[in-house]
Amino acid sequence: MKLLYPNTLKLDPSAIAGFPTVTLHLYDARAPTIPDELLDAEILVTWANSPANLKFAAQNMPNLRWIQSLAAGPNDVLNAGFDRSRITVTTGSGLHDRTVAEHTLGLLLNAARRFYEMRDYQLQGKWPGHLGGPQPDREKGTFRTLRDANVLVWGFGNIAKCLTPLLTALGARVRGVARRAGVRAGVEVFTEDKLPDLLPETDALVMILPGDPSTRHALNKERLALLPKHAWVVNVGRGTSVDEDALFEALEKGEIGGAALDVFETEPLPEGDKLYKAPNLILSPHAAGGRPQDSEELIVYNLRRFLAGQDLRNII
Amino acid sequence: MKLLYPNTLKLDPSAIAGFPTVTLHLYDARAPTIPDELLDAEILVTWANSPANLKFAAQNMPNLRWIQSLAAGPNDVLNAGFDRSRITVTTGSGLHDRTVAEHTLGLLLNAARRFYEMRDYQLQGKWPGHLGGPQPDREKGTFRTLRDANVLVWGFGNIAKCLTPLLTALGARVRGVARRAGVRAGVEVFTEDKLPDLLPETDALVMILPGDPSTRHALNKERLALLPKHAWVVNVGRGTSVDEDALFEALEKGEIGGAALDVFETEPLPEGDKLYKAPNLILSPHAAGGRPQDSEELIVYNLRRFLAGQDLRNII
Ligand SMILES: NC(=O)c1ccc[n+]([C@@H]2O[C@H](COP(=O)([O-])OP(=O)(O)OC[C@H]3O[C@@H](n4cnc5c(N)ncnc54)[C@H](OP(=O)(O)O)[C@@H]3O)[C@@H](O)[C@H]2O)c1
Ligand SMILES: NC(=O)c1ccc[n+]([C@@H]2O[C@H](COP(=O)([O-])OP(=O)(O)OC[C@H]3O[C@@H](n4cnc5c(N)ncnc54)[C@H](OP(=O)(O)O)[C@@H]3O)[C@@H](O)[C@H]2O)c1
Repeated sequence: MKLLYPNTLKLDPSAIAGFPTVTLHLYDARAPTIPDELLDAEILVTWANSPANLKFAAQNMPNLRWIQSLAAGPNDVLNAGFDRSRITVTTGSGLHDRTVAEHTLGLLLNAARRFYEMRDYQLQGKWPGHLGGPQPDREKGTFRTLRDANVLVWGFGNIAKCLTPLLTALGARVRGVARRAGVRAGVEVFTEDKLPDLLPETDALVMILPGDPSTRHALNKERLALLPKHAWVVNVGRGTSVDEDALFEALEKGEIGGAALDVFETEPLPEGDKLYKAPNLILSPHAAGGRPQDSEELIVYNLRRFLAGQDLRNII
Repeated sequence: MKLLYPNTLKLDPSAIAGFPTVTLHLYDARAPTIPDELLDAEILVTWANSPANLKFAAQNMPNLRWIQSLAAGPNDVLNAGFDRSRITVTTGSGLHDRTVAEHTLGLLLNAARRFYEMRDYQLQGKWPGHLGGPQPDREKGTFRTLRDANVLVWGFGNIAKCLTPLLTALGARVRGVARRAGVRAGVEVFTEDKLPDLLPETDALVMILPGDPSTRHALNKERLALLPKHAWVVNVGRGTSVDEDALFEALEKGEIGGAALDVFETEPLPEGDKLYKAPNLILSPHAAGGRPQDSEELIVYNLRRFLAGQDLRNII
């Protein structure tokens, strides 16, 4: 049985080898086609494939039974037209926890410490004196430090669990929102019906939701209106989970403190989009993840289970 | 005996009260003088005093025996002309650990995650696509994440000890440089004669040195030349510890990856200073600290020891 692995990242095939019935084959994930001799493969590992490559695979690989994406949110695979009645798709959730958590922490500190505003002054050759020197300490109604800040993480999965200890080490109080309520990784997690109580107490709202129909415009005008005037929104999940028009309006009117977005409804954000110039908006070009960590371990784990006929990890 | 405490931050006098022989008096630390009836005080607590106020105190307080500054580096007090033969000065080292550590972490992530460069694109209405999407993972000769990065902290005191666990939580390897060698807080600390071995292995050099004559231009042309081409310099100690001309040249020539400076030889950085336009320079306006935490605890600790004739904490 053939397993195809992509050339779009450095994978070590020797760390996947050892299953006698499986042969490993490198393929070009950016090419518009897949070579004839590989089209009978049963297993396809994907990462940063071109849309044409995925579309070709969906139409020309009759024996395909399992796709292991290395992306946490494999919207590309889901949109490529694979026959989901015979093909199982598993995600790379878990491979991006550390990179996305690091980036999210950076965005939160950028917001709290106002690095973006300092940059604007620097570019004009001006000293941003109002942001330095002796400052009021943890004033109510401000977001200037993570210490004692209330951080609400909406979408409390693998990335959130990795982010939480970083936030608490800096003194933040973390709560979560997900489909199921309960205490996870020491954090109280609520369902969305509790948002009317949670949002007004939030200094920073971190969104790490997947980009499926159930999360579309989860953060809308009504929910934005529940946030305090100083609260920041950070989105590192998927752009579709935020109503960008409503967010832009809230920023323009100063109804929230600011927003740091790594993901957008349309990526790249089109030239001339109003978000480029929105006040207190930090733009990051889908840069949080993009570097799967220890992919071989997940592939091996799932490959063994696949061969043994067991349930796979990260099934969609 | 009178203790004067400043009006430049919110201090809670009830958290200092309880010593029967000591009376507590609020004073205006920005006023050019100190009222007559307070001039016989023996203890002065300082924070963000105006230079005139300190100069006046130095010349008009005959009974002064102890100054408790709330600054970690009380260069203002040391330069005001107090009679150091009769007046003990103690610093606020320890009160700024968490705020400065948070800011330093933010600067390191700003550098690694290139938020400053993203900002430049955003302001031009452009998508910084080269910084997002699939990226090479932990390439040698880059500083794009704290994971597995070698961070060298020069000046390994209170702030460094607070910063270290934040860095290691993100996967960095931390080493230190100080006057005395040894293992502190689980970190190997070296003396400066080991810099020729340490600097070439450094991805990020964090300087947290005090601003005294012994540290002047500690980071000079020769030492800058020992850093790898991709290494970043972060300075949150005092501006005098870096030779700014040598640093500017290293940035201009691309001999180091970049620099994030919170402190400068002259503050505010004068209009027209070449550093404003140096490539890969992140400017922060002495904003790391500026918010002493739990000052009352240090004042009470030292006040008790002062009354008991014991050595004070943080003596200079
Ligand atoms: N910016 C980037 O570069 C980048 C990189 C990697 C991933 N991502 C995005 O981040 C997302 C999360 O990744 P992850 O690995 O943490 O995923 P995960 O472990 O699957 O966690 C997803 C979380 O979202 C919650 N959730 C899902 N649908 C929801 C809904 N309709 N309402 C409320 N909560 C909902 C889940 O709730 P339950 O736990 O109750 O099921 C879970 O807590 C990915 O899907 C991907 O889109 C972005
Ligand atoms: N940017 C800001 O807003 C801000 C805020 C607060 C403080 N600061 C600055 O940060 C500095 C450090 O604060 P801290 O509380 O961490 O001070 P600290 O606890 O006194 O630590 C100072 C460290 O520097 C080392 N050191 C001193 N002189 C040295 C020399 N000539 N060569 C090598 N190492 C030397 C000391 O070595 P030993 O341990 O071996 O004695 C010690 O490790 C302050 O002095 C202040 O200037 C800046």
